[in-house]
This record gives sequence, C-alpha cells and structure tokens, in this order.
Amino acid sequence: MFLGKVIGNIWATKKYPTLTGVALLLVQPLNSDGDETGSPIIAADTMGAGRGEKVVYITASEAVIPLPADHAPVDATIVAIVDYVNNEYKEK
Amino acid sequence: MFLGKVIGNIWATKKYPTLTGVALLLVQPLNSDGDETGSPIIAADTMGAGRGEKVVYITASEAVIPLPADHAPVDATIVAIVDYVNNEYKEK
Amino acid sequence: MFLGKVIGNIWATKKYPTLTGVALLLVQPLNSDGDETGSPIIAADTMGAGRGEKVVYITASEAVIPLPADHAPVDATIVAIVDYVNNEYKEK
Amino acid sequence: MFLGKVIGNIWATKKYPTLTGVALLLVQPLNSDGDETGSPIIAADTMGAGRGEKVVYITASEAVIPLPADHAPVDATIVAIVDYVNNEYKEK
Amino acid sequence: MFLGKVIGNIWATKKYPTLTGVALLLVQPLNSDGDETGSPIIAADTMGAGRGEKVVYITASEAVIPLPADHAPVDATIVAIVDYVNNEYKEK
Repeated sequence: MFLGKVIGNIWATKKYPTLTGVALLLVQPLNSDGDETGSPIIAADTMGAGRGEKVVYITASEAVIPLPADHAPVDATIVAIVDYVNNEYKEK
Repeated sequence: MFLGKVIGNIWATKKYPTLTGVALLLVQPLNSDGDETGSPIIAADTMGAGRGEKVVYITASEAVIPLPADHAPVDATIVAIVDYVNNEYKEK
Repeated sequence: MFLGKVIGNIWATKKYPTLTGVALLLVQPLNSDGDETGSPIIAADTMGAGRGEKVVYITASEAVIPLPADHAPVDATIVAIVDYVNNEYKEK
Repeated sequence: MFLGKVIGNIWATKKYPTLTGVALLLVQPLNSDGDETGSPIIAADTMGAGRGEKVVYITASEAVIPLPADHAPVDATIVAIVDYVNNEYKEK
Repeated sequence: MFLGKVIGNIWATKKYPTLTGVALLLVQPLNSDGDETGSPIIAADTMGAGRGEKVVYITASEAVIPLPADHAPVDATIVAIVDYVNNEYKEK
C-alpha cells in the first residue's frame, strides 16, 4: 500500500461499463514526510475521499475488492483515509 | 490506473490466437499536466480510442476483464477515454 | 520479497471494513547492507513486528494470505521478522 | 504489454519441472523508436520468435496462459511478433 | 523472469507458518552481461540453488506454484539454475 494525496479527478464519459459511477481520483504519491514522489496515478474511490486529503491506496489485483461490480477493470483503489502518519523511527 | 495518450499502434500478423482482432495501441504515459513520463507501453483497446486521444489504462491482472476472449494474455487495457483532467489540488 | 525496516505506522479511522483491526505499518525498503533505498511503503502486519525491527515483506496478490478477512484489499504484508542478513557472496 | 527485441537465450539444465521444453529468451525492452530502455528480461516463448526479432511481451499473471503446462511458474511471455511499429502521433 | 545471482540468505525465526522450511535467499539482479542492476530481492528457493550461482527468478503471483504449502505468502521464487547466458544478438 502507498501513501498519497488526492489532487483532483478524471472526467470520462466513455468508460468501461462496470466503471460507471466509480469515481476516478488523481492521487499524488507521497513519502512519509509528505513530500511528493513520482507521477500521479489514478485510483478508484469508494471511501468518499475529499480533494486534498491524504489516503492509503493499493495497486494490485486486490484493488477490485472494494468495488460494487464484480468484474471492474481497476488496478488501484483508495482503502483508507489517513488521520496521521507516524514515522518516528525514520533515520533523520 | 494511469493516464496516457494513444500515439500509434503495433502491426503483428503472428499473434497468440486469443489476441486475434484485439487492437494493440501504443500508449505514452502522461503526468497530470499532460507531460510525457517514461517509455510508451502497449495496451489492448476495446473502447475504440482514437489516435492522439487521452485515455485511462490499467496494468494488472484485471486488464483481461474487458476482452472478448476469456483467456487473452493481456496485461494492459484502455478502460476510459478522458474528457478532462482536473488537478486543481496539485501543489504548484 | 523485500527487506525493510519498520519506521512507524498509519493512523486511519476511516478504513475499508475488512481492514478493521489490521495494523498498517510504515516500512522503509533496505538494501542488503541495511541502507535505505527508495520511499517507504505501507504494509499490513500480522507478525507483531516492532518499531525499528528489520522485516521481510511481500507485495503481490499473495499479500492477502496472512490476513484474517478473506477479502482484505491489501497488497503488501510483513511475512517474517529478520534475525540476520547474510550477504557474504555480495561483490565488494 | 511491452515492446522488446530477442537478443539471446538462457541455457538451464536444472529447471522447475513444468518449465521443461519452454524456451527462455532474453528480451531487451525497446521504446517506440526502437531504442533500448533498461535491462533485458527473460520471457517464455511459444510463438517461435527468432533471434533479433521485435516482439510484444506481457509481464503479469496472464503470462502463464500461452504455456502448455497449467501451472508453469512464468511471469513474462512473448505474445506477438511485431511486423511494424507505427508511432506517428508521438510528439517529436 | 529475471536473471540474478545468489549472494546470501535471510535468517528469520519468526516466519509466517506456511513459510517454515522455505529457504529465503538474497538474490542480486543482473543484466545480460552479468553486471549488477538495482537492489537485491529475497526469493524462495526450491531448486537447491547454491551461494554464488546464477539463477532465473520470477516475481508474480505464479511465484507460489513451486512451493510445497498451497497458500505460502511468497512473491519471488527461483525457477531455474543458469548454465549459460547467450546474448549474442545484443547491440554492442
């Protein structure tokens, strides 16, 4: 799982049928200090994550589990909204 | 899921049988500003994506879901055609 | 599988239901000399790994196997706590 | 899926049983201009790809589909032999 | 599949139960010239690979296939011991 921040979303009228109604959010990966790392990815959201919120997202086959349709072609999904990142054992 | 732009396609007469009739498009990954990031990948298309269009593609096992043949050996598929990328919460 | 060090954890009240009670640890990837490589990832823990401990974690679909809930959306899990890393055949 | 060029092969007498008779080819990843990108990977081949030929290969769980044995431990397989790469919509 | 060299192993008393008795080897990825590329990974071994030997390893869900326990949480496994790497079609 990875730490990220919701920075926006994708508007798409033409979607694969089982993606209808699934929010496609633009998520910027973050390191444990909250700094941006790499390019944004697109994650499905069923948690109601708000714009600007820090989230935990997954990127494997299990990404389909939270989705309503059984065979949604999705490879990244938000699974938690972050209250606080504790990295006290990080080497300074 | 990732943002990309269709930049071309692959011509291949010799394909694995269940790939017959599946369009293999060349997709350039993009960041949320529309800039190119990394090397193009090859994605199957069942959405009828046009050359030059922005698309959302997936790259996990779920990539086979949109395909007609049940056991198509495919690991990347276009699942949406992008109308608009909203990245207003991105740090400037 | 990868070598890492537990450097902290994620606090999240809003989690996907089957993640309830699953510890989400912040794990810093390490090379075989114990040096940090790349950004921390978030791994589920069922081994009781302590803060600061070296661990082995996996990142594929098999990451769900150690979890209590059958359909937990998890893509990284700690599967061993490291006593000792032997890299004597490494080129110096 | 990715574009690559067959640059050689791996000789291995000791193989996992279900890999017996499976050709293990060394494939150099290419970008859409045919330039090399990154390190070669090893792909199973059931298409009869020749040395020096351009191919399309996949790298997910679906890589096992083209193989004769049902439970072959393979994560990359050649699925098409490329006649022509058209990247006319690439930004110059 | 990837080319690597066994450079050591991981000692771990506390392991997920189905990993008991599974050797966890430290494998340094190599390019086709035998040069090191990137950080070592940890692979399960059922082939009896010796320290210093060149091996082929896989890193997808299929990595569990060679293991004795049906539900071993493993994402990298050695599947062949390399006799010889032929890269004669590599561009010099």
